[in-house]
Amino acid sequence: MRGDGLAGGEGGAERLAELIPAALRGMAAGVAERGGPVPAGGPAAVAAALVAERGEFEPAAAVPNGVPVPASAGGHRAPPASASPAAPVGGRAAEAAPVVSGALPRAGVGAEAALEELSRLLAAGSADPADPACAAHLHCPPLAVAVAADVVASALNPSMDSWDQAPVASELEREFTAGIARLCYPRAEAPDAVVTTGGTESNLLGLLLARERDPRVQPVCGANAHHSVARAAWLLGLPAPVVVPCEGDRMLPGALARVLAPGSVVVATAGTTNTGTLDPLPEIAAVCRRAGARLHVDAAYGGTALCSDTLRPKLAGLELADSVALDLHKFGWQPVAAGLFAARDAADLAALTVRAEYLNADDDTEAGLPDLLGRSIRTSRRPDAFRMAVTVRALGTDGLGALVERCCATATEVAGRVEDHPGLRLWGAPELSTVVLRPVVADETGDDELVARVRRALLEAGTAVIGRAALPTGPGGAPQLWLKLTLLHPHTTAEDYLPLLDRIAATAGAELVADRESPVAS
Amino acid sequence: MRGDGLAGGEGGAERLAELIPAALRGMAAGVAERGGPVPAGGPAAVAAALVAERGEFEPAAAVPNGVPVPASAGGHRAPPASASPAAPVGGRAAEAAPVVSGALPRAGVGAEAALEELSRLLAAGSADPADPACAAHLHCPPLAVAVAADVVASALNPSMDSWDQAPVASELEREFTAGIARLCYPRAEAPDAVVTTGGTESNLLGLLLARERDPRVQPVCGANAHHSVARAAWLLGLPAPVVVPCEGDRMLPGALARVLAPGSVVVATAGTTNTGTLDPLPEIAAVCRRAGARLHVDAAYGGTALCSDTLRPKLAGLELADSVALDLHKFGWQPVAAGLFAARDAADLAALTVRAEYLNADDDTEAGLPDLLGRSIRTSRRPDAFRMAVTVRALGTDGLGALVERCCATATEVAGRVEDHPGLRLWGAPELSTVVLRPVVADETGDDELVARVRRALLEAGTAVIGRAALPTGPGGAPQLWLKLTLLHPHTTAEDYLPLLDRIAATAGAELVADRESPVAS
Repeated sequence: MRGDGLAGGEGGAERLAELIPAALRGMAAGVAERGGPVPAGGPAAVAAALVAERGEFEPAAAVPNGVPVPASAGGHRAPPASASPAAPVGGRAAEAAPVVSGALPRAGVGAEAALEELSRLLAAGSADPADPACAAHLHCPPLAVAVAADVVASALNPSMDSWDQAPVASELEREFTAGIARLCYPRAEAPDAVVTTGGTESNLLGLLLARERDPRVQPVCGANAHHSVARAAWLLGLPAPVVVPCEGDRMLPGALARVLAPGSVVVATAGTTNTGTLDPLPEIAAVCRRAGARLHVDAAYGGTALCSDTLRPKLAGLELADSVALDLHKFGWQPVAAGLFAARDAADLAALTVRAEYLNADDDTEAGLPDLLGRSIRTSRRPDAFRMAVTVRALGTDGLGALVERCCATATEVAGRVEDHPGLRLWGAPELSTVVLRPVVADETGDDELVARVRRALLEAGTAVIGRAALPTGPGGAPQLWLKLTLLHPHTTAEDYLPLLDRIAATAGAELVADRESPVAS
Repeated sequence: MRGDGLAGGEGGAERLAELIPAALRGMAAGVAERGGPVPAGGPAAVAAALVAERGEFEPAAAVPNGVPVPASAGGHRAPPASASPAAPVGGRAAEAAPVVSGALPRAGVGAEAALEELSRLLAAGSADPADPACAAHLHCPPLAVAVAADVVASALNPSMDSWDQAPVASELEREFTAGIARLCYPRAEAPDAVVTTGGTESNLLGLLLARERDPRVQPVCGANAHHSVARAAWLLGLPAPVVVPCEGDRMLPGALARVLAPGSVVVATAGTTNTGTLDPLPEIAAVCRRAGARLHVDAAYGGTALCSDTLRPKLAGLELADSVALDLHKFGWQPVAAGLFAARDAADLAALTVRAEYLNADDDTEAGLPDLLGRSIRTSRRPDAFRMAVTVRALGTDGLGALVERCCATATEVAGRVEDHPGLRLWGAPELSTVVLRPVVADETGDDELVARVRRALLEAGTAVIGRAALPTGPGGAPQLWLKLTLLHPHTTAEDYLPLLDRIAATAGAELVADRESPVAS
């Protein structure tokens, strides 16, 4: 196939059935080639492998001007202008400039070849969260059902900015977001929810809605809040957030009460990025109500625990927030992105209203065409709700809740093993699925840099991808570096992580020895 | 399959090979069921069909509490709290609230069933841009190769916010964006580009980078600019844009010169949404340079014409802009989203720098781990560059350029047929692939509402999806409503659109007759 066949229309499904196997062949080959959670060798090796690959599959014949292209792999900038052999001297650049880059060849190789080559390359060079040893971040292994659903969404390409680009897709989204709104706000009169690109955009919406009610709003968040809160304030032209102290990675409601004013918007967290801890939502909501402050809860991590009868009590108080961020690309096992933003009062979302004559003219809206533009700060956007809806349809909320429960139970068990481990120290009992730990040799030497080096050593060896968290556990509350396992793999047991715990402890020991043997200890 | 199998890891490719056929079966069935570019009947019929479908595939057995669920399809809000049969009276809602919604059932039906059902539903109810009669918007029919590539990206789920979530994906993105930067800026010293969710985010970045150099920046744009420019100014807390008059949907450089000040940032357009017209970039760039104003070009529509030797001259002057927006989900035939933002000087992108200890700690960056967080205003994000890179690898930039040429040539030819058509009037010769026309009966009666009704009638009949554009062609420059065909189908010829032209003229005639026969003419 030349590569210009369409995914939609009458022959679309057949064309996809022809091409997808090439992509999957490449992917399977790449996964086998990698043989571990992440390619070994670190950034330099990965960049070098890409350069080597380019040399192999970028013959001069593919470049019509016949001049071999210097590989730009790993370069952080465009190739220098001098690499452009046919650059005109003095002519109008836009007219004659050739397209030269390893990634932008003038001649193509056809669809199957491109798919198989690049899919293999991507798989071989990925950090695959489907490997239990890839446990650094809130980075989930997606469910096959969600990925399969996405194929149809991509092929038909509904664009969610007007009804005539997304007739039933917009209805399905409405239905799904209505369900999410009701999940977050079981007893509110008129809750609503919209789809976002993730917690970062949802947190921005939380602040934006507050700003639209009061242009002089002051953001307030815990020291445990995600960096996107401060970033949203910056983007929106608001003052930097007032930061409230935490204890045990949990916002202190008393401290919050002292900084609040009627023009405040508070961002609380239900599942912090560092430790998975949940802020005391009922107390925070009470403080906000007394102060006349708005409350947004970043439940990007913990929100889907609402699907579990046993975990739901952890989120008590969530329904008191004015708005909530959820990410189904965390617990929810969707490929990125699957963000949601729920508002207790649908009327608050009117802040997003915008008119564009070509998309939602008044007379079209009056004639019954739904206005979709006010449901996002984006214009064109994918129907990400489709694969979320298919997933929930396949598993049910009970099925999703069971997967969340399993991750949390595994984390609790792994934490127990950390406590029993002679070489490791546990930060605290997991509230969700994050296990925070520290090699005891780092405590003995007081060496935080050693902790950072353990993480990088495992990453470079290609044996494990683990996370890091700076927490105020040092002398006088100084930041101290911890290691972090964020368990989002729904099919593992604690046994799967025991070799990793041993490896962390052993690597810490080895790094310590290396330190002592090195003439210049770091 | 129960539905909780993973897409990645060792058995991932096999699981996908099992499930994707179910999705494609459903899609093919839905496409056949629809039988036209869009489902007939308009919003009410589509919503009703979804309700009917729910009744069919949502048996009481799927709801553990045994109470049938009222379909919420088409409802624009969450179902009322009273629909929740087990809502506790006085209890803590978060503990006991049941999950009730057609889209969020507690029990699942398994992966195959969910995929086949909902894929059929989506396909049957989609406006499919792979049908030539679906030609309203900058809404392209995606290439099968791009959709197939996306499967692998979804399955491996690299998240582009840190290297240890996206080792080779981040290298591939760097390489691809470097190529795009060089495409836009063939002779700049250090251009760079980043991936965005589309023109809306790219235009926001254009203003944001300007704001970070001068907090009191004043946005300026043509009357022809996309609504996202004003929206970005609002979001960023900047003053509303000063709007420069246009002639023929093209910004007037003389008028621009009169409003510019050193603190201005100008947004010009290379391919307007209404008519596909390109602003006179060299003249605008000269005016900006003289005034010391920054220039951002929204080339979301026209940018990919850079891949065509014959079309590239239309974009002369683009390389004089400080930044450029491109969308490969328009010309580029990617599923949404495939936005790009190029900056002439990579240093400008430093405005996006942000530190988050868990993602890009200083010591990790010093140790050689690339910092990805500063390459977006999002945090988690899909590797959309992957499918763009696979597509360009498959077709080459020449192949892509040829598809752009074909759409533009078809548009020119269709415009000729409009000129020759007794029932239609042409707005002007297409510069890209947009044909703007008006039924002559609307001119005769001076009735704009009739034009709007023609579009809605075709949409409701399910026979065509065409666009609308308000242009200042009325008496004294008053806005007048036009119809619009945006031709993004790369495999059609002018012949494919002739029945549509006839239908537009005939529908206008029929609407006119209906008007005259109606007791209350609208």
